[in-house]
Amino acid sequence: MDDRLKKQMEFILEVDKAKLIGRQTYLSDGSRKENDAEHSWHLALMAVLLSEYANEKIDVLKTVTMVLIHDIVEIDAGDTYAYDEKGHETKKAREIAAADRIFQILPADQAKYMRSLWDEFEENATAEARFAHALDNSQPVLLNDAADGPGWKEHEVRAAQVYKRNEITGLGSEKLWEFVDALFQKNIKKGNIIDE
Amino acid sequence: MDDRLKKQMEFILEVDKAKLIGRQTYLSDGSRKENDAEHSWHLALMAVLLSEYANEKIDVLKTVTMVLIHDIVEIDAGDTYAYDEKGHETKKAREIAAADRIFQILPADQAKYMRSLWDEFEENATAEARFAHALDNSQPVLLNDAADGPGWKEHEVRAAQVYKRNEITGLGSEKLWEFVDALFQKNIKKGNIIDE
Repeated sequence: MDDRLKKQMEFILEVDKAKLIGRQTYLSDGSRKENDAEHSWHLALMAVLLSEYANEKIDVLKTVTMVLIHDIVEIDAGDTYAYDEKGHETKKAREIAAADRIFQILPADQAKYMRSLWDEFEENATAEARFAHALDNSQPVLLNDAADGPGWKEHEVRAAQVYKRNEITGLGSEKLWEFVDALFQKNIKKGNIIDE
Repeated sequence: MDDRLKKQMEFILEVDKAKLIGRQTYLSDGSRKENDAEHSWHLALMAVLLSEYANEKIDVLKTVTMVLIHDIVEIDAGDTYAYDEKGHETKKAREIAAADRIFQILPADQAKYMRSLWDEFEENATAEARFAHALDNSQPVLLNDAADGPGWKEHEVRAAQVYKRNEITGLGSEKLWEFVDALFQKNIKKGNIIDE
């Protein structure tokens, strides 16, 4: 096998581990929590179906590719829950070390491109990154609402926390932010999110 | 919420069920079998990384979208194992009924597009569909080989079966077919695939 294909297949096998990285979001039927691969699949499909709601014109393939790889650093760094303040103190360093290792498995041109997409997502400084974050913030809210809030209840999440995390959602998509805000209000009223 | 976004979000919630549809392929570490959402995420990333090996020029976004939705009919129809001959007698009818229901949840324009992509995949009559099938056939072989063949051993799979199923792999990508064939030969030698 030639060296290029060998590196690509090695990376494809390596990222199989994303299927074993658990997140804190329950599936819509509440039966269990989802993992990074499932979450990324869901975001990719959302990127295709909801691209019309991006505030700015986006390159859909670039956005889809970004969400497909946005969490693979968690293979080494683990998932840091949105409202885990202690975890967030070390998150950046853990994830950069992971990015340094994992993307380098690819041939140099693809390693460079995938790493640049991940950096772009993290910096949230382009239309694609802003829309990707709007999707990444909306999808768990959609599932949590459908399951009647098990993730919020388990972690005793407060309204101030969800509003702080979602300050950037509207930067990517005003329309998705309206949608998410309505679900927050509904779940605050129901007591699934603590109103303080 | 407007009717269009409501339909889109209803579809996005509906397809969450793909995370609960089990396949017969073990993860590369052999710890458990994967599900449709995980498999589709893996194929989408492969489509991006390996598009250079398509025999014909392909639209990468179209191919990625195709693999993201290619298995969602299994939400109703269930996964039919590649080498389940009895299951394959009724597979087509079960999957068409599922496609009729599931894609119609979307707004009309998106329902039409996603259904057309699924039909195109099933008919295998375009460059994108042929490459998508090459990916769909390669990914389980890559995982099965990495895990030392648990899926083949569990189902007592024979060489004639894998070669018959993979008659179309080379139509999408000669390069991927060479890769897959080498893994088949290796696993026939190891006894993971029965040599008869």
